Amino acid sequence: MTATNTTSRLQKLRALMQSPEHNVTAFVVPSEDAHQSEYVAECDERRSYISGFTGSAGLAVVALDSAALFTDGRYFLQASQQLDSNWTLMKSGLPEVPTWQEYLVKNLPAGSRIADAYKLETDLAKVGSSLVPVANLVDLIWENRPARPASKLMTLSTKTTGRTHTEKIQQLRKDLEKKGVAGFVVSGLDEIAWLFNLRGADVHCNPVFFSYAIVTPDYVNLYLQEKSTSAEVREHLGAEVVVKSYETVFDDLRVLSTNLKANKQKFLLGSRTNLAMAVALGKENTTEARSPVTDAKAIKNETEMEGIRQCHLRDSAALINYFAWLEEQLANGVELDEADGAERLQQFRAEQAGFVGLSFDTISSTGPNGAIIHYKPEKPNAARINPDLVYLCDSGGQYIDGTTDVTRTLHFKTPSAHEKRCFTRVLQGHISIDSAVFPDGTSGYLLDILARRALWSDGLDFRHGTGHGVGAFLNVHEGPHGCGTRIAYNDIPLVPGMTLTNEPGYYEDGKFGIRIENVMLVRKANTLHNFGGRGYYGFEHVTLVPMQIKLIERSLLTHLEIEWLNAYHAECLEKVSPFLAKDSPGLKWLQREAVSI
Amino acid sequence: MTATNTTSRLQKLRALMQSPEHNVTAFVVPSEDAHQSEYVAECDERRSYISGFTGSAGLAVVALDSAALFTDGRYFLQASQQLDSNWTLMKSGLPEVPTWQEYLVKNLPAGSRIADAYKLETDLAKVGSSLVPVANLVDLIWENRPARPASKLMTLSTKTTGRTHTEKIQQLRKDLEKKGVAGFVVSGLDEIAWLFNLRGADVHCNPVFFSYAIVTPDYVNLYLQEKSTSAEVREHLGAEVVVKSYETVFDDLRVLSTNLKANKQKFLLGSRTNLAMAVALGKENTTEARSPVTDAKAIKNETEMEGIRQCHLRDSAALINYFAWLEEQLANGVELDEADGAERLQQFRAEQAGFVGLSFDTISSTGPNGAIIHYKPEKPNAARINPDLVYLCDSGGQYIDGTTDVTRTLHFKTPSAHEKRCFTRVLQGHISIDSAVFPDGTSGYLLDILARRALWSDGLDFRHGTGHGVGAFLNVHEGPHGCGTRIAYNDIPLVPGMTLTNEPGYYEDGKFGIRIENVMLVRKANTLHNFGGRGYYGFEHVTLVPMQIKLIERSLLTHLEIEWLNAYHAECLEKVSPFLAKDSPGLKWLQREAVSI
Repeated sequence: MTATNTTSRLQKLRALMQSPEHNVTAFVVPSEDAHQSEYVAECDERRSYISGFTGSAGLAVVALDSAALFTDGRYFLQASQQLDSNWTLMKSGLPEVPTWQEYLVKNLPAGSRIADAYKLETDLAKVGSSLVPVANLVDLIWENRPARPASKLMTLSTKTTGRTHTEKIQQLRKDLEKKGVAGFVVSGLDEIAWLFNLRGADVHCNPVFFSYAIVTPDYVNLYLQEKSTSAEVREHLGAEVVVKSYETVFDDLRVLSTNLKANKQKFLLGSRTNLAMAVALGKENTTEARSPVTDAKAIKNETEMEGIRQCHLRDSAALINYFAWLEEQLANGVELDEADGAERLQQFRAEQAGFVGLSFDTISSTGPNGAIIHYKPEKPNAARINPDLVYLCDSGGQYIDGTTDVTRTLHFKTPSAHEKRCFTRVLQGHISIDSAVFPDGTSGYLLDILARRALWSDGLDFRHGTGHGVGAFLNVHEGPHGCGTRIAYNDIPLVPGMTLTNEPGYYEDGKFGIRIENVMLVRKANTLHNFGGRGYYGFEHVTLVPMQIKLIERSLLTHLEIEWLNAYHAECLEKVSPFLAKDSPGLKWLQREAVSI
Repeated sequence: MTATNTTSRLQKLRALMQSPEHNVTAFVVPSEDAHQSEYVAECDERRSYISGFTGSAGLAVVALDSAALFTDGRYFLQASQQLDSNWTLMKSGLPEVPTWQEYLVKNLPAGSRIADAYKLETDLAKVGSSLVPVANLVDLIWENRPARPASKLMTLSTKTTGRTHTEKIQQLRKDLEKKGVAGFVVSGLDEIAWLFNLRGADVHCNPVFFSYAIVTPDYVNLYLQEKSTSAEVREHLGAEVVVKSYETVFDDLRVLSTNLKANKQKFLLGSRTNLAMAVALGKENTTEARSPVTDAKAIKNETEMEGIRQCHLRDSAALINYFAWLEEQLANGVELDEADGAERLQQFRAEQAGFVGLSFDTISSTGPNGAIIHYKPEKPNAARINPDLVYLCDSGGQYIDGTTDVTRTLHFKTPSAHEKRCFTRVLQGHISIDSAVFPDGTSGYLLDILARRALWSDGLDFRHGTGHGVGAFLNVHEGPHGCGTRIAYNDIPLVPGMTLTNEPGYYEDGKFGIRIENVMLVRKANTLHNFGGRGYYGFEHVTLVPMQIKLIERSLLTHLEIEWLNAYHAECLEKVSPFLAKDSPGLKWLQREAVSI
């Protein structure tokens, strides 16, 4: 990885910042696009363009005489390689390192005008600074900026979604009525895709499309790019949904602003809406809250749950085929690099019914590369898969009936006692989460310790969350809930119908990485009692790929953990075998691996 | 339990409230005294006097035309029996029941003047109401109010405290310097007792005395009641500590207020200081924070830790003697009530070296009474101890070298399968907490789930915290840390030297109660690794009384839990036997009970 020379880009940006028209002291460039997407289209990779740093998470602050890039532990190494000397790397999470908000408040003169950073306002007000919405200056200086994609949209029937978009809109209107607001602007791309039962391909690995929507008791406007619409889409949407042009949403918001003020009404503003929309709508005309669409989308209905189960069976079969193939190749002394592996795995997935694409770039990593948590192997730098080292593979697919995300860690020869012990501690954390039973009201923040406890007993830990929600043929990362040390997760109890990954790990820099990840559904638990009448919940795992037995140190396990593993393997064998060809290497591999210990 | 007629008391109080001199719309009567003590002297039992409700936790709000008593789940039954028809019982914690702050904001007309409720201010300001400090009106109407106790003080040497009061004051001054404040008013009674290495007996079971202290870089004032001082106390305190009269602290605060304003300095105000002190000092002259004395006191030094270990050996011996005696009496058909049991237990404790008194009223409870979490048996209502029912005993002592708090649950005949299963689930939670290893930075809020997990798996739970800090020959409940679902605990990581009880339970209303409680010390853990260089901690239990084997359903335990139990029993036998007389029933009981399973 090499650094990008950003001198000329920064010069141009600063010239614009100082121009009388814009006149801002600092320009904040987040990773997210206008829809607050975690993954963005190339044309929205502004932060990468201005800084040279290409990781998935990070935020740049360009002031007149400084430029700082904030990113987290997953990316310290990569950022230090990709940033040139114009930039200061701020290692978020380390002691003494300020948040970017603190940094702005501390480092800018009081009374500064700062462009685009919605959430900062309260702190800034204290020092007499203010946020100002300006045109996106990076776009103005970006040479050869890629065009905004506008994929053809796919319509989904209730066979996979379980509910029509009309029913979903009805529910949303009820939510809005309860909140006493006159309407809602939907700006999250996955929220819109879910609400209208449409899918696109505008963002790599995310089946979403550029759009906005406005929902009120009286009308529904869906703002789409011209090229995305079609007669099929219009027919699917029906007469009530008015399709308008993507670019016109801001004009409509400004008209709305006037009407709301005149009628003394308020709109709901999703807490992840961007500043420009809030300003167009008039903040005084809004009430801020988490998007009710996000909350509704998080709880899967029966049809979605069944789709999730089904696609995971096929996806597990694909992964099993790949592991069988990979093991055979390595046993035969074939030289393969990590990217070859990822490519072959994608082919196995593509053979499965309903396959649409990957849900994220496959992490296929050997030895030390496994310790780089968001590693992406790319030719010609991908390493040869060394059968003497631990191999970590984290991958997933988009299927018409669901989205998958699975990690397994394998060793193709003889693992060391240390590697086995670490793997077993991670497995114990995985089992502890999988078999947890908890009362209504319990958050993933509270469950997180179960994933770490066995590791902690050996003085080990991992520096990422334990789990995230997964969309139903949507984004592989989906909120609002999650399992991990982020205190925000404590506000959102886990309830039946939610998806959650279970992915504890352990990483030894320069040596190896271990992670074991399944997707689970939250469901009602059948407990002996029901103290307090609260209702008790547990998990149903839908990923069914065996854990490699040679990596398990059996003596560390309790009889309950052994029972769990044996039952899990029996379930893998029973449920995935029908998806593997007779006498195939995949079936043989499954039969050999999915055994009792 | 019967209700107290509060009609006349309320009439008198409301007349005072409406008098031009006071002119308040509502009067808030908390359980705590002016020092925010959890347990108070009789003369400070204002809330009990005005409402008739005598539980340890609760708050009364007297308005001109209503009176409400707020208390938690432990006291719903008792409060409903003790309140007369003048009162509305507010069951805190149930859905739909407001907090007392919400209740005030909702139920009082905007612009109300409300007496004494420091923390409420922000909410009240929103509705244009305000808090006003007034004389304590309950005192003015209280007929036959008991006199304020003023016990002779006991001086402690560094043999038990480990540090002189001069060293502690030096440390406090350093803390104040770091915080950039000119001084600190110490108002917590246990904070003052700890800081000056003095003990008293002004509050039942709490070795504290009425006092205030002011510490600045230049002087130390200790405000004591006349009768509490003595030549010995003055000699112990030395020349630097100026002893002043308890009643004069407010005059001094008002002088201080003027000086602070003149010098533009601030005093630190402990977050548990009462409103009257804040007003005397002038809120504008203060910075609010958790008391640094509370934080320092929570971390025991080596001498204190050794004292805590030693007194727990003697205390465990006393409890073992009692259980042996009780079992023999019941086997012989002797009729005993719960209060007889508590009395005999106190005698066994009194035989131990260094015994000063009880650390709280003994909970000696048979069958259904065990489900009343804060049950106190009193003649003539105490129930006969029925050997066919579960017996729960929660008790503790004050010793010159430490404070104890221990609960064991026993059955004298044959427990049911259900009772055994419940007991075993509680025991598994207890073992899980006891054997936890966790990295630096982990709070008791996060560990709490370990105490509940096994219970949850059967759909069971308990409605109280898992653990609290314990003083070193001081209050049996001590902050700032704790283990439980209170989010405030999440701000205070557990660090070596802290004490913590481990007391999961399970309660079946009208049937039985189960609780297993040990006192533990947080200490460094010897882990195989030290990932992230953070340091990993664990617990050392200091309570050594066997768990009753006949209540354990062995098949539910893992081999690790069985190993824990066997090791614990071996430790009980080894360490407590020397404190039991040769051939005594206690020693025989220990030898029979502290065995491997």
